[in-house]
Amino acid sequence: MIVIGEKINGAVPKTRAAIEARDKEYIQELVRIQEAAGCDYIDVCASTDASVEYDTLCWLIDCVQEVNTKPICIDSPDPNMLVKVFPKINEPGLVNSVSLEGNKCDILFPLLRDNPEWKIVALASSDNGVPYTADEKVANCFALIEKAAEYGITEDRIMNDLLIFDASTRSDCLSAFTEATRRVKEKYPNTIVTGALSNISFTLPVKKALNSAFLVLAMEAGLDSFIGDLTNRDLKAVMMAADVLLDNDKHCRKYTTAFRKGEIGPIK
Amino acid sequence: MIVIGEKINGAVPKTRAAIEARDKEYIQELVRIQEAAGCDYIDVCASTDASVEYDTLCWLIDCVQEVNTKPICIDSPDPNMLVKVFPKINEPGLVNSVSLEGNKCDILFPLLRDNPEWKIVALASSDNGVPYTADEKVANCFALIEKAAEYGITEDRIMNDLLIFDASTRSDCLSAFTEATRRVKEKYPNTIVTGALSNISFTLPVKKALNSAFLVLAMEAGLDSFIGDLTNRDLKAVMMAADVLLDNDKHCRKYTTAFRKGEIGPIK
Repeated sequence: MIVIGEKINGAVPKTRAAIEARDKEYIQELVRIQEAAGCDYIDVCASTDASVEYDTLCWLIDCVQEVNTKPICIDSPDPNMLVKVFPKINEPGLVNSVSLEGNKCDILFPLLRDNPEWKIVALASSDNGVPYTADEKVANCFALIEKAAEYGITEDRIMNDLLIFDASTRSDCLSAFTEATRRVKEKYPNTIVTGALSNISFTLPVKKALNSAFLVLAMEAGLDSFIGDLTNRDLKAVMMAADVLLDNDKHCRKYTTAFRKGEIGPIK
Repeated sequence: MIVIGEKINGAVPKTRAAIEARDKEYIQELVRIQEAAGCDYIDVCASTDASVEYDTLCWLIDCVQEVNTKPICIDSPDPNMLVKVFPKINEPGLVNSVSLEGNKCDILFPLLRDNPEWKIVALASSDNGVPYTADEKVANCFALIEKAAEYGITEDRIMNDLLIFDASTRSDCLSAFTEATRRVKEKYPNTIVTGALSNISFTLPVKKALNSAFLVLAMEAGLDSFIGDLTNRDLKAVMMAADVLLDNDKHCRKYTTAFRKGEIGPIK
């Protein structure tokens, strides 16, 4: 599993407070704990007013780049902002996100074409309404992969976020997502399927149970990656347990090693 | 999900000590906590030497019947012992277990035929070796259901334990079990599929992660029931979360109610 750590996001109240106070130590601690938990990318998202987004992202990127050993996943809903802050990032990482909405592809695909070491998160959304069904997710995903190919961007550089919606408002969140995952992986085995895991439990209690159950079921369907909180030890243990059960961890070696190192299970 | 509480079993060290000390209070507390957690049946298994099994089971049954509100699942590897203690049980419950091994069917099916309110746990094992593969599990299960039919025992009275083996020794434990589950439910939609959940994590650490991940994936395949520890709050929350995701809990009503009542989530 490729895990993108979600914690450095101004939508998280404590992170927002740290951003407003320009509390570098707090942000850098989020880098450290997410890397220690095993995250492969560190998401960096301002979630501020557009007027201060550039300055905020520059500050966040500077904070993170003083300490990180894993690449940045630079995250903004504004494709022009992504292009603007892109030169500030020292090492190739992830651009989060492109989609079929508006002119995002036209703005971001040239950047990806010219920077072949970078990958991109592609949301399966378009200007044609919210893609709740598997058919809509798959249609958007395929169209985007085809559009990327026109720029020479290969499917293995695309992390397709097939959109996890909250279970409290839709009863088919899981089935639509897993069906779409299977169909995307069947047509494009080398592309990457991801999703923002914490969305499933939005407004619901005992979030780790919903997040864990969704993760396991999506992994069985072929999920390669997620954006979420790997510092939650229970979630991490369940993810590693699913890898044992899905035969991705021969002789339970990673699982038992993680336990011996104190990375899963009760804190010693 | 139909849950059979596993705690009153002499194979559990604390339960064994309570049995040896004839500690009625301890056994009755196990009844109460398992019923409070939502168990549908209370397994009662001596796991003693054959020489003291009858006396032990009679004592356990008396203890349980002073307090239980859910039926007993009477559990012994010896079919003659099950027949012998059967008259001691006041209310119809579960007989655990029959299988194609030896003469178990010949001994237990007449009992079930004559007591139509009782159900039976049927292990998918036979005298032909350990059924690790889906094919073997399914063949045994079908043969047993057909044999039961000869006694007029309908498939809906049979809880088919398709045998969960430990993940530490077999890499196909999950896939064999889920494939068998799908095939059994396809042919016999009204029969019940169950399994002893805790087996999956035998000898492995962080058992609740493996048990939870297995449960969720087996539920997706059609598991109707399990024998396990529902007093583990994390396991219970994940089970209920899976019911939300698998669309068995409309509008998350059971999930949010369980949270409000303090049955899942942090202890208040």
